[in-house]
Amino acid sequence: MPTYGSPEDVRKAIEELRDALPGKNRVQTSPESLQVHGSSDHSYHPSCSHSVVVMAHSTDDVVKVVNISRKYRVPITAYGGATSIEGHFTGFPSGSICLDLSAMNSILEINEADGDLRCQPGAKWEDINNTLKDRGIPLFFPLDPGPGATIGGMIGTGCSGTNAVRYGTAKAEWFLNITVVLPSGKVIKTRRRARKSSAGFDTTKLFIGAEGTLGIITEATLRLAPRVPTKVAMAQFPDVEKAVSAVQQILNTPYGPNIQCVELLDDHMMAAINTAGVVDTPYPVQDTLFFKIQGSPESIRDTSNVVQEIVQTHGSTRFEFAATEEEAGEMWENRKYAFFSTLATHPGSKVWTTDVCVPVSRLPQLVYETKEDLAKAGLKSTIVGHVGDGNFHALILFKDEEELRNVGAAVHRLVHRAIQMDGTCTGEHGVGVGKTEYLVEELGEDTVELMKTVKNAIDPLNLFNPGKVRNPTSDGGQR
Amino acid sequence: MPTYGSPEDVRKAIEELRDALPGKNRVQTSPESLQVHGSSDHSYHPSCSHSVVVMAHSTDDVVKVVNISRKYRVPITAYGGATSIEGHFTGFPSGSICLDLSAMNSILEINEADGDLRCQPGAKWEDINNTLKDRGIPLFFPLDPGPGATIGGMIGTGCSGTNAVRYGTAKAEWFLNITVVLPSGKVIKTRRRARKSSAGFDTTKLFIGAEGTLGIITEATLRLAPRVPTKVAMAQFPDVEKAVSAVQQILNTPYGPNIQCVELLDDHMMAAINTAGVVDTPYPVQDTLFFKIQGSPESIRDTSNVVQEIVQTHGSTRFEFAATEEEAGEMWENRKYAFFSTLATHPGSKVWTTDVCVPVSRLPQLVYETKEDLAKAGLKSTIVGHVGDGNFHALILFKDEEELRNVGAAVHRLVHRAIQMDGTCTGEHGVGVGKTEYLVEELGEDTVELMKTVKNAIDPLNLFNPGKVRNPTSDGGQR
Repeated sequence: MPTYGSPEDVRKAIEELRDALPGKNRVQTSPESLQVHGSSDHSYHPSCSHSVVVMAHSTDDVVKVVNISRKYRVPITAYGGATSIEGHFTGFPSGSICLDLSAMNSILEINEADGDLRCQPGAKWEDINNTLKDRGIPLFFPLDPGPGATIGGMIGTGCSGTNAVRYGTAKAEWFLNITVVLPSGKVIKTRRRARKSSAGFDTTKLFIGAEGTLGIITEATLRLAPRVPTKVAMAQFPDVEKAVSAVQQILNTPYGPNIQCVELLDDHMMAAINTAGVVDTPYPVQDTLFFKIQGSPESIRDTSNVVQEIVQTHGSTRFEFAATEEEAGEMWENRKYAFFSTLATHPGSKVWTTDVCVPVSRLPQLVYETKEDLAKAGLKSTIVGHVGDGNFHALILFKDEEELRNVGAAVHRLVHRAIQMDGTCTGEHGVGVGKTEYLVEELGEDTVELMKTVKNAIDPLNLFNPGKVRNPTSDGGQR
Repeated sequence: MPTYGSPEDVRKAIEELRDALPGKNRVQTSPESLQVHGSSDHSYHPSCSHSVVVMAHSTDDVVKVVNISRKYRVPITAYGGATSIEGHFTGFPSGSICLDLSAMNSILEINEADGDLRCQPGAKWEDINNTLKDRGIPLFFPLDPGPGATIGGMIGTGCSGTNAVRYGTAKAEWFLNITVVLPSGKVIKTRRRARKSSAGFDTTKLFIGAEGTLGIITEATLRLAPRVPTKVAMAQFPDVEKAVSAVQQILNTPYGPNIQCVELLDDHMMAAINTAGVVDTPYPVQDTLFFKIQGSPESIRDTSNVVQEIVQTHGSTRFEFAATEEEAGEMWENRKYAFFSTLATHPGSKVWTTDVCVPVSRLPQLVYETKEDLAKAGLKSTIVGHVGDGNFHALILFKDEEELRNVGAAVHRLVHRAIQMDGTCTGEHGVGVGKTEYLVEELGEDTVELMKTVKNAIDPLNLFNPGKVRNPTSDGGQR
């Protein structure tokens, strides 16, 4: 079992970091910086400050920091967009280095003809897409998690977003290769730039979803997709079951691949949107689907006809197709601002956001049971879901410590419910510290043991983001 | 370093296998069976017979065999459709068990609404698709490697096929979860049935492309896609460069996602098709693209207009759109029978098939240099390529041992050329024994070392398909 550095070791490590990375503000120990880098604004898991924050500017910098971390046995946590909501970048009790990669945010190369792009880990997906648009390149990067997420974090959590129903997740083939600094300090590139390769183990995927516990990503080559025109439509239903069965039928038709996104907003969420005042005319308060349909004008027309026909068969009470670009934008924004609408409706409250994912057919039951459970517990909540994937976010409100405990217990019950429906404790937010306790229940002891075997082999000193993904209490404290 | 069982250990292992799997023909040691199971019909790498062939009927059987393999230190190789062309299932010199999973070929469950299917590893992708069609289910499984390939082997090699340009490869998200027997004899299921999960390391992907060196797959849940109508078109060009630049432009338009397949057949391949007599009217002998365009009738019409316009801009001399279903089928068959047409044109010859993959923009140069090199070496060949992915197959003819050596050397040069163009030694056939020597050049020593670290941690006795993926001579014989 590894032992971590003493407070004296941590002090020496910080000294050596200052020597290794000279320059203004490269090595920070101010209470403000440590606090910001140690705890997320949007999660309520137990958190812990780091001992030091280091600003990396290059792969070489990362190697230096990793080598110092190893020399003094001080754990190291990668930090990027800080949008995680499962406590991915909290510090380690015996002292830890927060490696801030947000300044490594350059786009290094765009190969338009080949449809790929090379960038640093701190680049944000929105900035990448804006750059492509500004340069007149007809391509985009389809993974769209929360605003502000960076490529490094998106790889780390195995992210997805609203586009996943059409384009899949980070675990598909959007990362052609990545450059990684290993716990040994060695730098590897997992693959070359060819679109496909069967040359040995899929080492790229080893790091996708590993949450910085196996390596620190310092560069990535992304595959891009052509930008396709879209239109937005909305359908309302008397209940979630009807909405979900409509989605299932639509996705299985030959027009299914034209559905870029299909999002479910429950009646509470629609009420929140109305109350938040982001719409001119309030929507009927019903379970609602928002569609983004892609293709040529004719293809969009045909697809929306099929969608309209199917939602009507499934009892939709209202179907609306955005008439203009502007209306489409507005309609979609309503979905995007779910989090802020939920907050705005309940001044003084905070929101705990969690996500689970189940086979799509199980989603209605999960939604019903969860809403019933939350109501029984006296908790207010809204639900938004990437319904085409069976992925479901609950935004649960609380005002004080007691309600917070109440929320924690409700999330716990929600996760168990999802796992019992052959689902997962997290569809896209990752494990962090918030979901570690569920892995064995979901995957079985031997599958989790396999993860530990891989972790121990690659990071025998358990220095890379310890306590994340694996449950620190399940195997003797430190590992 | 592990040592393998003695001849006496192998004998005892066979005895114990007979006790563990009673019944007719479950444990085979006839020279015919050993020969068939030890060497492929379609590859010319050094091969070696297994000591025994075992027919598995269940996951329990596989566990029994793995435990006996471990007890007597006798290596074990999984065997399914036997369509590999890189020597994946050849035996091990000190004695080995061939675990034949071809009888485990059942479809266990189809969830039409959720669009997934659970099956055993010996199920063939064509049988799965035929079953779905026969049952009136409007879904299909899009990975389409060579005819006869089984799900287990498709996972093992990280396969793809002609549909990859639209649907990606085995390394995308077509396998929701797999059940695997580990070298320890433990049985794990990598994930649940939800479409997405961010719950820890992507252990499914650990086994995709691992060629049976990390675990033996005994079950898989596949994600299905809706069947979409298609039409076939053909475009001919004065040279490969014009053909490839047309493909790049087409794929980057908003109509790009409607291209299900785009295959390149070089002039030699077109000549072979003419000579083989599979067409009524011979084609002009030119570099040719075959397209499969998918969508609704209107969408196909729009897409084919865009394709026609772009290929003409790039100097296409002939564009033909199959008028009827039948004509489309015939046109596509010509691509499918590339291998047999190549053989038929040169009676008495054999064919060495190899594949590499490069960024699409490098493909024309690779094709030119390769054709020039082969001509200089006095070798006849044809070329077919999944041009949308930059993946390229050379089918090189030979008649005797001397020509075979000549072919081996030409393949060696081709692989080096591809790697120098930022490509890979294999786009979809896998490493087997045929491509082991190129991994370090392609990926660097430290990336290969990472693969070894993972292998040693999961299979410390190196009993699972030793000598495949990793170069047996690069690290002291046995490992």
